[in-house]
Amino acid sequence: MTKRVLAIDPGFDRLGIAVLEDKEVLFSGCIETSRKLPHQERLLEIGCAIEAIIKKWKPEDMAIESIFFNKSVNNALKVAEARGVALYEAAKAGLRVYEYSPQAVKLAVTGYGKADKTQVENMVLKLVKFQAPDGNDSKNKRLDDEMDAIALCITHLATTKGI
Amino acid sequence: MTKRVLAIDPGFDRLGIAVLEDKEVLFSGCIETSRKLPHQERLLEIGCAIEAIIKKWKPEDMAIESIFFNKSVNNALKVAEARGVALYEAAKAGLRVYEYSPQAVKLAVTGYGKADKTQVENMVLKLVKFQAPDGNDSKNKRLDDEMDAIALCITHLATTKGI
Repeated sequence: MTKRVLAIDPGFDRLGIAVLEDKEVLFSGCIETSRKLPHQERLLEIGCAIEAIIKKWKPEDMAIESIFFNKSVNNALKVAEARGVALYEAAKAGLRVYEYSPQAVKLAVTGYGKADKTQVENMVLKLVKFQAPDGNDSKNKRLDDEMDAIALCITHLATTKGI
Repeated sequence: MTKRVLAIDPGFDRLGIAVLEDKEVLFSGCIETSRKLPHQERLLEIGCAIEAIIKKWKPEDMAIESIFFNKSVNNALKVAEARGVALYEAAKAGLRVYEYSPQAVKLAVTGYGKADKTQVENMVLKLVKFQAPDGNDSKNKRLDDEMDAIALCITHLATTKGI
């Protein structure tokens, strides 16, 4: 069954986002906001970008990574704010929302819950087919957060037997 | 100078909200969401309620409380998500956003940064005049979060010399 999935790797300075249908990456990229902007303007940019991507690609499901606490408490709270905006836009558009932990993503993509970034990226590149609709035709240019969002899509499709 | 201020005391299960113009409370209440709803549906309810209140009352500024970590890390992350949605709606509507710590609110309202809830509430009741546009005509019915939002408005008006 063909299913179109939006995935979001939450972040504040940079948020990874991808849209997959089966094994094909229809869109992937990062939403980056300037540190010079007021806090709420950065959330506005994140929300409006997600809203536009949902409108353009019309996904049915959203997969989003759960947050855990890293070294910086303040950073975790800012990431949670951006995650709230992403969930809000998904709910507004009527998407079904699924949450996965970083460990669940590693396990689904590589078969090993403690895989490192390179192992995850290598498997992602083997599992999916890239379109280059936004001029991003070089795999080398893809950032970590973008790859993480694609890995999240794969996790969701695998979990729901779509891939 | 007359200024209309929206204030939000962020929360997830219950969020306090108030609109003041000078010393008059035009609107105050709480947005409560059901624990039975999926997480993103609760954020949707919070965001849509804030959007509707902004449309109805047309405030120029938003005062919002900063978050600090209390006992529950998971709760702080959920409150941060709701706070992100509130900031997003404020930015969408072009409001100027100001952030105050709980201590700054206590200091502005009572003159004492470590005042307790009762001291803050007593001063709030002395400082403002209530309208009862939403049938909330009994001061006794006001919940803590609603009073906190009114106190935030007072703090903002005092800080910017509007009260």
